[in-house]
Amino acid sequence: MNLFPVLLGLALSASAQTPSNSAAAAARQWREAHERSILTEFMSLLSISNLARDTDNIRRNAEAVSALFQKRGVRMQLLEFPGAPPVVFGEIRTPGATRTVVFYAHYDGQPLDPKEWTTPPWQPVLLDSQLAAVPSSGAIDPAWRIYARSASDDKAPIIAIATALDAIKFSSITLHQNVKFVFEGEEEAGSPHLADIIRKYQDLLPSDVWLICDGPVHQSRRQQIVFGARGVTELDITVYGPVHELHSGHYGNWAPNPAMMLAHLLASMKDDNGKVLIEHFYDSIEPLSETEKRAVAEAPDVDAALLKEFQLGRSDGAGKKLVELLNYPSLNIRGMSSARTGAGASNVIPSTATASIDIRLVKGITPEMAAKRVIDHIRAQGYYIVATDPDPATRTSHAKIAKVVTLPGGYNASRTSMDLPVSQLVLRTAESARGPVVKLPTMGGSVPLYMIEQILHAPTITVPIVNHDNNQHSYNENLRIQNLWDGIELLAALLAM
Amino acid sequence: MNLFPVLLGLALSASAQTPSNSAAAAARQWREAHERSILTEFMSLLSISNLARDTDNIRRNAEAVSALFQKRGVRMQLLEFPGAPPVVFGEIRTPGATRTVVFYAHYDGQPLDPKEWTTPPWQPVLLDSQLAAVPSSGAIDPAWRIYARSASDDKAPIIAIATALDAIKFSSITLHQNVKFVFEGEEEAGSPHLADIIRKYQDLLPSDVWLICDGPVHQSRRQQIVFGARGVTELDITVYGPVHELHSGHYGNWAPNPAMMLAHLLASMKDDNGKVLIEHFYDSIEPLSETEKRAVAEAPDVDAALLKEFQLGRSDGAGKKLVELLNYPSLNIRGMSSARTGAGASNVIPSTATASIDIRLVKGITPEMAAKRVIDHIRAQGYYIVATDPDPATRTSHAKIAKVVTLPGGYNASRTSMDLPVSQLVLRTAESARGPVVKLPTMGGSVPLYMIEQILHAPTITVPIVNHDNNQHSYNENLRIQNLWDGIELLAALLAM
Repeated sequence: MNLFPVLLGLALSASAQTPSNSAAAAARQWREAHERSILTEFMSLLSISNLARDTDNIRRNAEAVSALFQKRGVRMQLLEFPGAPPVVFGEIRTPGATRTVVFYAHYDGQPLDPKEWTTPPWQPVLLDSQLAAVPSSGAIDPAWRIYARSASDDKAPIIAIATALDAIKFSSITLHQNVKFVFEGEEEAGSPHLADIIRKYQDLLPSDVWLICDGPVHQSRRQQIVFGARGVTELDITVYGPVHELHSGHYGNWAPNPAMMLAHLLASMKDDNGKVLIEHFYDSIEPLSETEKRAVAEAPDVDAALLKEFQLGRSDGAGKKLVELLNYPSLNIRGMSSARTGAGASNVIPSTATASIDIRLVKGITPEMAAKRVIDHIRAQGYYIVATDPDPATRTSHAKIAKVVTLPGGYNASRTSMDLPVSQLVLRTAESARGPVVKLPTMGGSVPLYMIEQILHAPTITVPIVNHDNNQHSYNENLRIQNLWDGIELLAALLAM
Repeated sequence: MNLFPVLLGLALSASAQTPSNSAAAAARQWREAHERSILTEFMSLLSISNLARDTDNIRRNAEAVSALFQKRGVRMQLLEFPGAPPVVFGEIRTPGATRTVVFYAHYDGQPLDPKEWTTPPWQPVLLDSQLAAVPSSGAIDPAWRIYARSASDDKAPIIAIATALDAIKFSSITLHQNVKFVFEGEEEAGSPHLADIIRKYQDLLPSDVWLICDGPVHQSRRQQIVFGARGVTELDITVYGPVHELHSGHYGNWAPNPAMMLAHLLASMKDDNGKVLIEHFYDSIEPLSETEKRAVAEAPDVDAALLKEFQLGRSDGAGKKLVELLNYPSLNIRGMSSARTGAGASNVIPSTATASIDIRLVKGITPEMAAKRVIDHIRAQGYYIVATDPDPATRTSHAKIAKVVTLPGGYNASRTSMDLPVSQLVLRTAESARGPVVKLPTMGGSVPLYMIEQILHAPTITVPIVNHDNNQHSYNENLRIQNLWDGIELLAALLAM
């Protein structure tokens, strides 16, 4: 899918030259000699199902990740907290080092419906980008992909770091900094215990910077370094019709239809261009600095290529570029349901209709502020707001009722200044390994960076490695092999910086 | 659930007195002596799963229905047509009769999701109206209910007719008319072959009137006689976002969300009072006659009681009564879906969003007219209309795309004049069996009456027997025992009229 010929040319030529960074060069040499065994070790990790709520299996993942690093001589321990999957912690102490760098990744994956997947989500398989079979021996085409839940999000950085450690050891490269590893097991569940765990184990965690190994590289396939992440909060909204489904013939025209009510309610929240119409939704946003504005302006424009890739006839945002729109909060319907569609549909007036929405937050807007703005809006549309399913007396005494449930685990946005010395060091190191990088004030997605800043007072910088077209959070998640190779080089350089 | 104390009082006192109609009186006597065995025979019929598309089981139903009537000496045959479940046909010829009456019912049931049912849908069980267990011997409380798919819709009339035949035979009541039975096996699939079957077998079917034994009695629990039915057509509408789901963080604010597009589209179709805003939607309705208007005006007003029963705080229709609103076409969202809600939800921008709608039709509006009006409306909202999933070139060249699929099996509304001699005969007979009845020009639901009028030139009159609160078309479908007892009496009277 070579949709970015010009930009890709740049990225490919950077990949083709031997990196000027010696750790990155060593990583390439090691990788070229061990491609099949790297993939075998990775696929073994991907074969353990990894939903945060699946207590037994998520612990098996933690133990497997821990074993990967123990094998490489890293001192590992599982940081336990009641009700949470363990955080896998590791440490490499470097005598005389004056800087401590934490590498963060997460080993849990998004919930899924196996029926939607072409291949079973926890039976990793190497295929081409059209999901066709590839030879099981011989040279590996870097355009091939591994298909599995968490192949990209977010086990790829874990195997990349482990492989980078092999290369560093093999080439006898000396580390200059203390290195710590924090691998979380419930990021996709909203990191509900991470703040508590960081507080409980903060004696282990003093650090100068956290490198967040999560999210995709730029859509142009160029390396990007990202200095913040949007926050997130999720709301489930349910509206009510008759207490049970009714025959749509006998009561159609008379019994209010909750699916239609929900359509009216949701339509009131956004205009046709995707602008949120909820009062105060865009209030109190912390503005970008001049450096940040310049970085946004300099980011490659990939919108036309993305429209083609995603087969879209238009984008939201009234003409604004994607990279600019990510600096605003967003309101997204992530799922919607009422009664049944397809073969199971029947002629009923549904009893309820539900929409699940996620709101991405930027600096200046907390989850509580955003949720309140949405709830105030729903109330302003004439709805009586409840927190649990209404009883008969409540149902009969209100024309419109909406249950609004804020899902646990929302968190704030965060942004590290690009002008800090450590920010400049990371940028220089990344460019010595991977050529010119795209610099962004924020990624569109969410990782719980704010709590690291708040509790540990350490800045965070995100160093993604995976392809943007990875179907992350959806079915057929995949990792493009070239991204893994490039990621090993980047992470070797950052380990050895 | 005694929500209609006044109206129910009327209905119950009618039930309590011995009917003046001798066949109805004989039916009561027979039923009182055989209650348990009637229910046993019924539950055996209900235990055969009966989806029209389940070829083997639907035929087992046909054979079981046929056997019920053969056992009672009726000459039966299965009318076969390629691809259709058989129509079960039976005939009782009466020497010297000048009138032939067809009793129609259907033995197939609505699709369902067993997970939604409290008890398995094809394991019929006798419970009270709160789904609590009842004694398995001793007197049967007529307020108890049988829970099973098709307990009401529409196997109840089949067992009621069979039982009425037992009573007629036992009491040596002489029939004065020829009687025919037509039991269909794919009504809930929209009767896609009934017109063809009627055409193929029309030599068997000459008749003066068809009595349609389907649908519920009035919500006041009074007997009603209905002279028409709304037609129906069903449309599936799918709108398109990105070709696959996208991470809502990385693309939220930029990639159009199909669930939000669908919300806007659906919201444009109806106002807050349920009035359809689609241009021409209410055009060309054939007006009610003076007799029909009077019948509507005289129908009991049950709206307040229904609001309470269904736990609704308001109704659609801007103050119009339910019985009046049924004489207008309706547009109903019967199901809506996009990505996932609940435990399976994830932070994605969905790829598609689908609504399934059913449109109830009245005289003067055909399925084709209604579908065209909806499609024209969707087009007027800026959508490019397709009939199958769009290819990449189509997707990228249109800002908004909607796939609209008209489901097979839609049909016209029908209405028989209340002033016909046979209409008057049916009304007199019903009132002699069941006391004063509610007369309605149309029922809200749909049965394929138009084809009987069109092909056989026979008028149709609907004689429902089941309770309105039967969860027809939904989970926990049930039949209130008193309705079965009353129905046996009504049908005995109509068989012997």
